[in-house]
Amino acid sequence: MKELMTNPIAEGFRMPGEFEEHEATLILWPERADNWRNGGKPAQEIFAKLANQISLYEKVYVGVNDRQYANARSLLDDSVTLLEISNDDSWVRDCGPTFVKNDEGVIRGVNWGFNAWGGLVDGLYFPWDKDQMVCPKFCEALGKDYYNLEEFILEGGSIHVDGEGTLITTKACLLSEGRNPDLTQEQIEEILKRTLNLEKIIWLENGIYLDETNEHVDNIIHYVAPGEIVLSWTDDEDDPQYELSKAAYDVLANETDAKGRKLKIHKMMLPTPILITEEESRGVDSIKGTLPRLEGDRLAASYANFYIANGSVFVPQFDDPNDVLAIELISEIFPDRVVVPIYAREILLGGGNIHCITQQVPK
Amino acid sequence: MKELMTNPIAEGFRMPGEFEEHEATLILWPERADNWRNGGKPAQEIFAKLANQISLYEKVYVGVNDRQYANARSLLDDSVTLLEISNDDSWVRDCGPTFVKNDEGVIRGVNWGFNAWGGLVDGLYFPWDKDQMVCPKFCEALGKDYYNLEEFILEGGSIHVDGEGTLITTKACLLSEGRNPDLTQEQIEEILKRTLNLEKIIWLENGIYLDETNEHVDNIIHYVAPGEIVLSWTDDEDDPQYELSKAAYDVLANETDAKGRKLKIHKMMLPTPILITEEESRGVDSIKGTLPRLEGDRLAASYANFYIANGSVFVPQFDDPNDVLAIELISEIFPDRVVVPIYAREILLGGGNIHCITQQVPK
Repeated sequence: MKELMTNPIAEGFRMPGEFEEHEATLILWPERADNWRNGGKPAQEIFAKLANQISLYEKVYVGVNDRQYANARSLLDDSVTLLEISNDDSWVRDCGPTFVKNDEGVIRGVNWGFNAWGGLVDGLYFPWDKDQMVCPKFCEALGKDYYNLEEFILEGGSIHVDGEGTLITTKACLLSEGRNPDLTQEQIEEILKRTLNLEKIIWLENGIYLDETNEHVDNIIHYVAPGEIVLSWTDDEDDPQYELSKAAYDVLANETDAKGRKLKIHKMMLPTPILITEEESRGVDSIKGTLPRLEGDRLAASYANFYIANGSVFVPQFDDPNDVLAIELISEIFPDRVVVPIYAREILLGGGNIHCITQQVPK
Repeated sequence: MKELMTNPIAEGFRMPGEFEEHEATLILWPERADNWRNGGKPAQEIFAKLANQISLYEKVYVGVNDRQYANARSLLDDSVTLLEISNDDSWVRDCGPTFVKNDEGVIRGVNWGFNAWGGLVDGLYFPWDKDQMVCPKFCEALGKDYYNLEEFILEGGSIHVDGEGTLITTKACLLSEGRNPDLTQEQIEEILKRTLNLEKIIWLENGIYLDETNEHVDNIIHYVAPGEIVLSWTDDEDDPQYELSKAAYDVLANETDAKGRKLKIHKMMLPTPILITEEESRGVDSIKGTLPRLEGDRLAASYANFYIANGSVFVPQFDDPNDVLAIELISEIFPDRVVVPIYAREILLGGGNIHCITQQVPK
């Protein structure tokens, strides 16, 4: 396979929307005991369930550290392909490849720089060297060349695209001190545009309250079709999230996309705030250098962190009254896809959700 | 991918000859400093050269431990696919899959038990748990199901087949105390026959003198076509190898194969005995539990340890006057293949040669 230092846009590549057809889904296996409670066992069960269920709709590749290979194999169906891919944690959306595609259907990876959501400034663990190799290894195993953009720090979860020239992101994340402090907003736009083939970048100020990723956009909105998004919402004006969602709405409602369209915005009600229990906190190893999981901490729960696969949508559920609203909204938006509810508290406890632990390979 | 506990022969599978068409070649990356001198650097160079050269003729997959991934990538051509496959050492012929094929062209692996050439009796290193997983991991990455025969200890280098029902092996290895001491010769025959689809097994007593694998057959003979083999030979009656080669010749010359054919035997002159130098010995770490590499030890050098790939044959060379005889003989036997000489002292120093570090995937 080839490492390319050239320019995707100049070679006719663009990043497709998640809702376009997939060749496969990538997932990484969770195990670190300083992030996943009880030695990762509850998380492994839900990751396996998700991988097995997605594999009913499209090919699934799961990457795993050697020491967990046999265990992962025992929990995954035969339809899932397990690959040894060393990693520091299981957030493939963020450390793994973003894929671009050209008109001939050639698929290539993009290897962004990864520094565990903020490096030595406010990163969530140290080191992250194995995560940085996840993209090259997955690309090689899948037979895809990749563009190397390691010099530019970006996580896949901090961007959403419509596949037609528009990208939405948050300033809280992309302009954070721990990522590319030497680049201006304009320079960052420039890199994104020439890498993913974009004409318009829409900047929200914030994402979800207390989101430890510096507020990734994929936790607050989700592109569901060109010109159409869902936005995480609360009507509780006393919740700090209210102002963040309101401000995002105001930006989105007043913007047009690369094609000059106004955006259709679906408000998606957030669940009631979810806090870490004492028992959950006790299950996580304390390790110097890793963000602790303390009793009573509010988690950045959001239904917008769903995942669109071929003919299907996998939606987080929290045993909350609003679960059903999320399912109903997604079902309305995607009448032709099977909507699969996934009880996702265990993923949330690790710091993200279904969208964060999946990455689509376009067809 | 599927792990199968069923019976290859009952499902119409057989092990093809190495000279039949290949889909690919598997190789593992060398690194252990208690076996490969100077931190494995000289061996890595020759393994990379071999992989790169084979990739001119067929697809090559190289498996590598995570810590050597970037280094291997830097030495391998883009045409070679590098996969993270943890291993204890780089003898894919012995620890990796043996492949079988059916009439519809389906390819499946066979996962033999592996115990580092003799386990706790006279194995060459400890532990060997990562080697045991090489077959399942390669099979999964290549999209092949595999038969699990882990209960039966066998290395791929201890057998040679003609693809038409005949297998040749050595008693010194297959009946050794460190492998399957509870099985009789007849029981071992039975397992081999039903797994690889054989009717006839030809037993040589010995292989190459001082061969640390308990005298693997692939160092003394090589099937080059159905009914046709090369046999390592010396005319020096004072060399302990003389009696071993002579005895093998007597067995082979008086046998018929599964199809009732007499075997055509090409005598292949061995190189002058090759000893480990003081400098070479000094370059290897001493580790309790690993076979030491001592100055003056005689190495089990043999030209028969070559590798047949699509349209090509890769032949060990030792900077010996007999090098040219080996090349001439192989060129005569394979007039339609490119014969590629490979200076192989660095592989030999690790305890094997080109055939030991390669494994064919039939097409």
